[in-house]
Amino acid sequence: MLNGRMVRRKKTHNPSPLLYADSDVNADQLYFGQAFVPDAFLSFGLKGKKYAFASALEISRLKTESSFDVVYSLEEWRQKAARHYRKKAATIVDIVRLVAREFKISEFVVATDFPAGIAFKLRAARVPLQIAEGPLFPGRCCKSEVEAKAVQEGNAASAAGIRAAEKMLRAAKIKNGKLIYDGRPLTSQRVRQAIEIACLEKGALAAQTIVAGGDQACDPHCRGSGPLRANQLIIIDVFPRVARTGYFGDMTRTFLKGRASPEQRRLVHTVREAHQLAIDTIKAGISGARIHSSVESHFEKTGYQTKTSNGIPQGFIHGTGHGLGLEIHEPPRLSRGGPRLKAGNVVTVEPGLYYRGLGACRIEDVVLVTKKGCEMLSKCHYRWEFT
Amino acid sequence: MLNGRMVRRKKTHNPSPLLYADSDVNADQLYFGQAFVPDAFLSFGLKGKKYAFASALEISRLKTESSFDVVYSLEEWRQKAARHYRKKAATIVDIVRLVAREFKISEFVVATDFPAGIAFKLRAARVPLQIAEGPLFPGRCCKSEVEAKAVQEGNAASAAGIRAAEKMLRAAKIKNGKLIYDGRPLTSQRVRQAIEIACLEKGALAAQTIVAGGDQACDPHCRGSGPLRANQLIIIDVFPRVARTGYFGDMTRTFLKGRASPEQRRLVHTVREAHQLAIDTIKAGISGARIHSSVESHFEKTGYQTKTSNGIPQGFIHGTGHGLGLEIHEPPRLSRGGPRLKAGNVVTVEPGLYYRGLGACRIEDVVLVTKKGCEMLSKCHYRWEFT
Repeated sequence: MLNGRMVRRKKTHNPSPLLYADSDVNADQLYFGQAFVPDAFLSFGLKGKKYAFASALEISRLKTESSFDVVYSLEEWRQKAARHYRKKAATIVDIVRLVAREFKISEFVVATDFPAGIAFKLRAARVPLQIAEGPLFPGRCCKSEVEAKAVQEGNAASAAGIRAAEKMLRAAKIKNGKLIYDGRPLTSQRVRQAIEIACLEKGALAAQTIVAGGDQACDPHCRGSGPLRANQLIIIDVFPRVARTGYFGDMTRTFLKGRASPEQRRLVHTVREAHQLAIDTIKAGISGARIHSSVESHFEKTGYQTKTSNGIPQGFIHGTGHGLGLEIHEPPRLSRGGPRLKAGNVVTVEPGLYYRGLGACRIEDVVLVTKKGCEMLSKCHYRWEFT
Repeated sequence: MLNGRMVRRKKTHNPSPLLYADSDVNADQLYFGQAFVPDAFLSFGLKGKKYAFASALEISRLKTESSFDVVYSLEEWRQKAARHYRKKAATIVDIVRLVAREFKISEFVVATDFPAGIAFKLRAARVPLQIAEGPLFPGRCCKSEVEAKAVQEGNAASAAGIRAAEKMLRAAKIKNGKLIYDGRPLTSQRVRQAIEIACLEKGALAAQTIVAGGDQACDPHCRGSGPLRANQLIIIDVFPRVARTGYFGDMTRTFLKGRASPEQRRLVHTVREAHQLAIDTIKAGISGARIHSSVESHFEKTGYQTKTSNGIPQGFIHGTGHGLGLEIHEPPRLSRGGPRLKAGNVVTVEPGLYYRGLGACRIEDVVLVTKKGCEMLSKCHYRWEFT
């Protein structure tokens, strides 16, 4: 587990971060305590120290494996709060009230995704509470060297997955326009399974992996199903999470087995140009919005229009990229309104074009933003047409 | 995807459920719309109909693959709300305000885990909002036949994982007290990988799989690491999520390679007795609390005490079970304060005993509560000692 530096705000008045979430899914809680816990638990920070309340089930493990400075017994604090507020059974809200009192905390700050059910009750109990504007831990947006390496490890798993898919496509035979592998039709599902096993062998779990050919790929989040066909663009998007660290990789390649048409070639070529253009443009100080609009202009100039026809959006229908770390989608975004990039941001670069009938192409890598430009955190070749 | 029946409350005043969450993780959103979406999106229910707001990225897919009756373009509603409230850019809160106005919705109801950041702004904008006491969709607690089958499918994946682990342990050789497999020490990590691949082959993703031997297993959520040893109890807990449906399996077995001591045998035997006792006790109308206390009494009567020594809880240190479905831990709980069970509840039954020095044992299956008792939704033998 990595880098749970607490962010000290520079104001004189320093509200205490308060969390009530699990850490298997909630990235703030994982960043804060650096240990995986499957159920929601309470934690807070005060004067650079981190405190957690753990059930009997978790307490020994959190004491030894987490970065919490103090791990209290939840049961003991429940009893204490029940005595103090003269209740039969104390709630999480009672415990937070008592903590505010005992630690003389004048205000808590919670993330925007803090549970409303608890937040309303805390306010009703007059516990001072503000909601963070933006991230609870802004430090999460600028990755340390260790974190950048962890994302790189995620991308190594992505690349292993993509290579597994490539290997199947290369080995497949074409019969009546369909791909045949090991004597059976090669389906999106079979390729997905091979990808996910390759990721597991790298210690990473890939969920919702996309292997979508032809018009299926025109829905950017369609996972793909059924037999894959020759001469079709096949989008393969692999975003595994490294089990040990919780950091994600995210990489996309578009392949074609058989022979591409001139239109398909031009489509792939144009997306690859846009991808490189974005990578060449990225550096600290430039806004995500500007990078996105440079990609948009490139597509417009080369004749690829974005519009909705018959209710179906076609063309370049998503952002150019997003932050990547303990969450698959996190700030900063490379899209309309995207903020100025900072050194240490880790972002995907993934332009794509989607046209029903012709098919779709997306090419995605991950970069670390630096003062002078960016460093690639993902590595896989760009060959795409296999005969 | 399965069974997103909307729950109609019996009150005359019927608040509209409002959700703002992704559905890859958030189970209510998945239950409601029956489609996986990786980013938070807005949805609501009104008079038995389900509405969603989708970005260009998701709209075609949600129109065809989800159970939403109406899928609106988020961008169009953003523009509409901006015009209506004379803003440059409209927020999610503005869209909800406009929805309340246009659909004449007098009150929304949100889940307790609805994002506080949005909830506070909605209240500030005078959008009437209540927080559900208990689940947003109480119907999620009573599974349909299709859902019970989906959990069974998850457990078939768990069983495949456990069999893969058993196979490795059976094939392992013992050298100087360590297990050797394929010429190398058999570690928790290697067994975990084999389990997770077996789950993938069943179409399910297993995260945080537990393979913990000896004292490691005395922390019930310790995943386990390093070489596995002979004559040690090894807890194997596998809880994969079926990728297609989102439903979980959850199964635990405790194995020992080598020769068990009389104390280890008595421990395993007593846990298995408690496990069977709980299964025999479960039926609709009996409370989860009562089932839990019957297991507690069994352990006490057989001399297995639960207490904290040197700050470390030992004995039976967790609940007897929990609801299982689109979340790994959901209502109803079989533990202190656990509610009366209803036909259709799907719960785990997983008593365990944990004593440092001796080791730990947990045995877990999943059952469907019926009027007369329960039906097993998981299937794997209980042999545990392999020489």
